[in-house]
Amino acid sequence: MKLIRFGKLGKERPGIMIKDKRYDVSPFIKDYNEEFFENGGLKQLQEIFKTQQLQEIDTNERWGSPVARPSKMVCIGLNYAKHAKETNAPIPAEPIIFFKSTTSMVGPYDEVMLPKGSLKTDWEVELAFVIGKKASYVSKEDALDYVAGYVLHNDISERAFQLERGGQWAKGKGCDTFAPLGPWLATKDEIPNPNHLHLWLKVNDQMMQDGNTDDFIFNVSYLVSYLSEFMTLLPGDVISTGTPHGVGLGFKPPIYLKEGDVMELGIDGLGTAKQSVVAYAKN
Amino acid sequence: MKLIRFGKLGKERPGIMIKDKRYDVSPFIKDYNEEFFENGGLKQLQEIFKTQQLQEIDTNERWGSPVARPSKMVCIGLNYAKHAKETNAPIPAEPIIFFKSTTSMVGPYDEVMLPKGSLKTDWEVELAFVIGKKASYVSKEDALDYVAGYVLHNDISERAFQLERGGQWAKGKGCDTFAPLGPWLATKDEIPNPNHLHLWLKVNDQMMQDGNTDDFIFNVSYLVSYLSEFMTLLPGDVISTGTPHGVGLGFKPPIYLKEGDVMELGIDGLGTAKQSVVAYAKN
Repeated sequence: MKLIRFGKLGKERPGIMIKDKRYDVSPFIKDYNEEFFENGGLKQLQEIFKTQQLQEIDTNERWGSPVARPSKMVCIGLNYAKHAKETNAPIPAEPIIFFKSTTSMVGPYDEVMLPKGSLKTDWEVELAFVIGKKASYVSKEDALDYVAGYVLHNDISERAFQLERGGQWAKGKGCDTFAPLGPWLATKDEIPNPNHLHLWLKVNDQMMQDGNTDDFIFNVSYLVSYLSEFMTLLPGDVISTGTPHGVGLGFKPPIYLKEGDVMELGIDGLGTAKQSVVAYAKN
Repeated sequence: MKLIRFGKLGKERPGIMIKDKRYDVSPFIKDYNEEFFENGGLKQLQEIFKTQQLQEIDTNERWGSPVARPSKMVCIGLNYAKHAKETNAPIPAEPIIFFKSTTSMVGPYDEVMLPKGSLKTDWEVELAFVIGKKASYVSKEDALDYVAGYVLHNDISERAFQLERGGQWAKGKGCDTFAPLGPWLATKDEIPNPNHLHLWLKVNDQMMQDGNTDDFIFNVSYLVSYLSEFMTLLPGDVISTGTPHGVGLGFKPPIYLKEGDVMELGIDGLGTAKQSVVAYAKN
């Protein structure tokens, strides 16, 4: 199944996609949140899909992030061999992890806003996955039992905030609009092998990132198991697995996003997204 | 006012403290969460306090974290001049920020659990504050308008996970039970100057940390303003302001927590807390 959310930012309602059309499930399901994943929501959704008459969603309705705001969004740094190389970083011996503020989450076709004073905002196409049940000290063998599904993520990063402002990466990762997610969450059965997916990102029609998750240093099972040693992962949590080579920082000289730029990105089985870049404007 | 929460972990209900006694406000207030702070909950609570007959809470009831799980828990690293010195770190030019997984939150008298394989778990008494309204690009002058109140926090840290496992601090900060909060959230009116508070922590009756927030490198107003440049702070978010000198890592040789140790800690106006250290036990 493909789960989507639709409606205004912060007021999204849940739906599902069937053959390129979106259908409203909000009469039956409150939201795709911790409670949903924890209490067998995916099974309930299967039942709804089979038994209920669903209403098609107006094509003009905004696409929201396909999952509600999670308890946390954890990201992996430098998880592709070629990306580590382009940023002059050594291959990590174990995963590098950091958090994105969940206030950065937006929909797949929303605008990405350069924060005030930003000169080095960069793109990062990533495979993200969503946790399906509470995970603490999970083995690699059991790890995929804890994954509900997969989603396309653009891990937008302000490199000066991330790398030149005092030590930790959190500052450059969590600005508003810095985590476009979607178009949909594909349930696990739709993605038989998450560790062999083509993923790409274009800026203004030019291919910048063109990789495959088979270049992962640490695969999805490894990451679930590893993260669960350091913190409890909750149903609905979003984990982003790192980006392949081809980010702006890796060019000589580096290339960064500016107002008016258009990013398009995609992953096998997870659809495509498109985001325009706008200057900072206080809401 | 002093806000408390009581009851089993994950099932806490809200209350208030009046002269050392706890009173149940759960018939009137759902929880001390984002919605509460966003929608004038503190004013409503004043009204309830004045007009309602409240029931005293059984003294045997567990003390929970005085705030519900927030959208994020942001911490400041090396924010006391003397602590920077003891860890051989230079005085930061701007605040170092990192996240704790919110699954680490527990009550003020709960046990702190050493994670599997931990050899270097350490204490950190901290002044934390809770955001009262949505904050984005807030000036230092207006910053305190965005603070709802203050709370005592022990920012438990596994130093090997934090510093020896690949670059970012997140791994050593978010283990289960690593964020005991409380006993209470004191509303802002009770703490006229958060930047001049005595705070201390003892391990097994021995004074380890004995500092004052007047040693802050960056004060509360500065931190609200600074953080709001990098991410939107939401009502109910918990920000922890860093720890004074005297952590285990700073001793020569370092001293770390072991099973059976007892930590006691306190801050002027925010009460005292007490946590015993236990070995890892999967629930």
